[in-house]
Amino acid sequence: MKAIVVSAFGGPDVLKYFGNHEMLKVLGDHQIFIKVSHAGVNPVDTYKRAGNYQPSSPKPPYTPGSDGAGLVHLCGPKVTKFKPGDRVYFCDFQTGSYAEYCTVSEDRAYRLHDNLSFEQGAAIGFHTSLPTVLSLLKEKLEKAKRFLFTEPVEGSAWPAARLPSTSASKSLAQLALKKARWNGASEVLNHREDGYMELLKKGQPIDVIIEMLANVNLQKDLDLIAEEGVIVIVGSRDRAEILPRSIMMKESLVTAVSLFRCTHETWKEMGDFFDRGQRDGWVRPVIGKVYKLHEANLAHEEVIKHQAGSQGKILLSIDD
Amino acid sequence: MKAIVVSAFGGPDVLKYFGNHEMLKVLGDHQIFIKVSHAGVNPVDTYKRAGNYQPSSPKPPYTPGSDGAGLVHLCGPKVTKFKPGDRVYFCDFQTGSYAEYCTVSEDRAYRLHDNLSFEQGAAIGFHTSLPTVLSLLKEKLEKAKRFLFTEPVEGSAWPAARLPSTSASKSLAQLALKKARWNGASEVLNHREDGYMELLKKGQPIDVIIEMLANVNLQKDLDLIAEEGVIVIVGSRDRAEILPRSIMMKESLVTAVSLFRCTHETWKEMGDFFDRGQRDGWVRPVIGKVYKLHEANLAHEEVIKHQAGSQGKILLSIDD
Repeated sequence: MKAIVVSAFGGPDVLKYFGNHEMLKVLGDHQIFIKVSHAGVNPVDTYKRAGNYQPSSPKPPYTPGSDGAGLVHLCGPKVTKFKPGDRVYFCDFQTGSYAEYCTVSEDRAYRLHDNLSFEQGAAIGFHTSLPTVLSLLKEKLEKAKRFLFTEPVEGSAWPAARLPSTSASKSLAQLALKKARWNGASEVLNHREDGYMELLKKGQPIDVIIEMLANVNLQKDLDLIAEEGVIVIVGSRDRAEILPRSIMMKESLVTAVSLFRCTHETWKEMGDFFDRGQRDGWVRPVIGKVYKLHEANLAHEEVIKHQAGSQGKILLSIDD
Repeated sequence: MKAIVVSAFGGPDVLKYFGNHEMLKVLGDHQIFIKVSHAGVNPVDTYKRAGNYQPSSPKPPYTPGSDGAGLVHLCGPKVTKFKPGDRVYFCDFQTGSYAEYCTVSEDRAYRLHDNLSFEQGAAIGFHTSLPTVLSLLKEKLEKAKRFLFTEPVEGSAWPAARLPSTSASKSLAQLALKKARWNGASEVLNHREDGYMELLKKGQPIDVIIEMLANVNLQKDLDLIAEEGVIVIVGSRDRAEILPRSIMMKESLVTAVSLFRCTHETWKEMGDFFDRGQRDGWVRPVIGKVYKLHEANLAHEEVIKHQAGSQGKILLSIDD
């Protein structure tokens, strides 16, 4: 099958395209084999590729990618949730999704409704952490009046519109601004413009910040957050310098969610959440640039540098 | 009266001793006027003296000090809790305690039992934040098996023995080790010894860390803490460099408590907590070096550098 393989750790150029890569032969009881239509490209894929990923870098050779969408091709003997031909999106860490076929656990794959394209489906996968965030913040959310999502549009499937008073997003290039508004954000800011911090500081204090780039923004978040506000880290690329006294002054709470620590129940909850969202129309993933499979190296450069602007989820199209 | 006055921000030498400083003349309805026996010397006093304290540095000239112990000298017209001659310890931010007399709000002063000396009383004041920490961590404490207090002995009044399985402390010089054990710590480590991190990593994961020097230790804490463990910052002197991904990997929770944000109810709760502790004998403050009032500059050097080792609370003796 067609697949991208990392044969050694390194820069984007270690992502090699194989036209005839070996396919996995044995399917576990509860595994499904998916013909991938589109794979999601995530910053974490680049950290793994570079070989310095905590808690555990994969061992080369391996095929990158953890999320995507496609058609169920084969089902393991005890799979009851799906049948061949079902449209699915998935988020799993078993075999890489930068490939024509991919093996995932049946509980990490979810039905893709007919009103969403495979591209849109592939933009949901890795962002299924939202329900975990929501559950963590349940009490806060009931009282909170102002939220800040950094790069919600890059996350693309984050149904911002469903959150009370979701208000601001930054890290958005001009094109993305419109899409963010469409996704329900009530204020949209571009962090590349001078003075966006001043704009954020105006108005109500921000009760909850979902932070996708903590190494750059954590201290800014600590400056912006309301007293006893919550900062949830969902992404970080490097070290961050902070003033711990900022945490003390407001008794802020800094925490994080990690997909790697989700329980079976949480995965199910997340699936149900997005199922309702697809049915009711508020899961409206925003697609950024779509690369061909053999352009995985370019996609890896883009997902870090955002030269085209953060317009939505970056994907690989497998069929082309 | 005798008092220390900061006439301009700067190093320890700006702490000037006045033998005949003006006394406050008017006492508010709920204020008490205390003849101070001993004042506590805290790191935060030095931050304020240097003039870069967040959220608010006092304006010179002012008398430093926020805690201490002594005798009630006068009571405001509506004070019911105390009468002149009562032994008290206190923690307030109204007038400085590096002085012969000091004005505090009646709800920030507490009865000092006869079994504790004024020196011991002066070692409780600023560490009354413990009950807040405990209440914050209530749920965690029920499940937690291993705690780490950094510098519990410097805090001196922290009744470590009352916490389940309180286990390790670092930042302790040799002399302090014995005192820490006496205070109920089940393991005592010296962070100046090589390999103390390895010792801490052995055995059960640490569920709760009370961190008194976050700028130095926060990343170490993130490495040591158990999954979903809690780090509570109660002290920090400067910026800290951390890997936010460490927070993500374990879904740790980093938060803080601040005396400045305590409610009236919390102050009362804290007073009651230490009242029980004095009565039942588990409040056993450990005294470090005691300086004379006119040696406040030396005390400020010591509280930061710990040249004599962190043996317990550093005090000023006012009477001498």
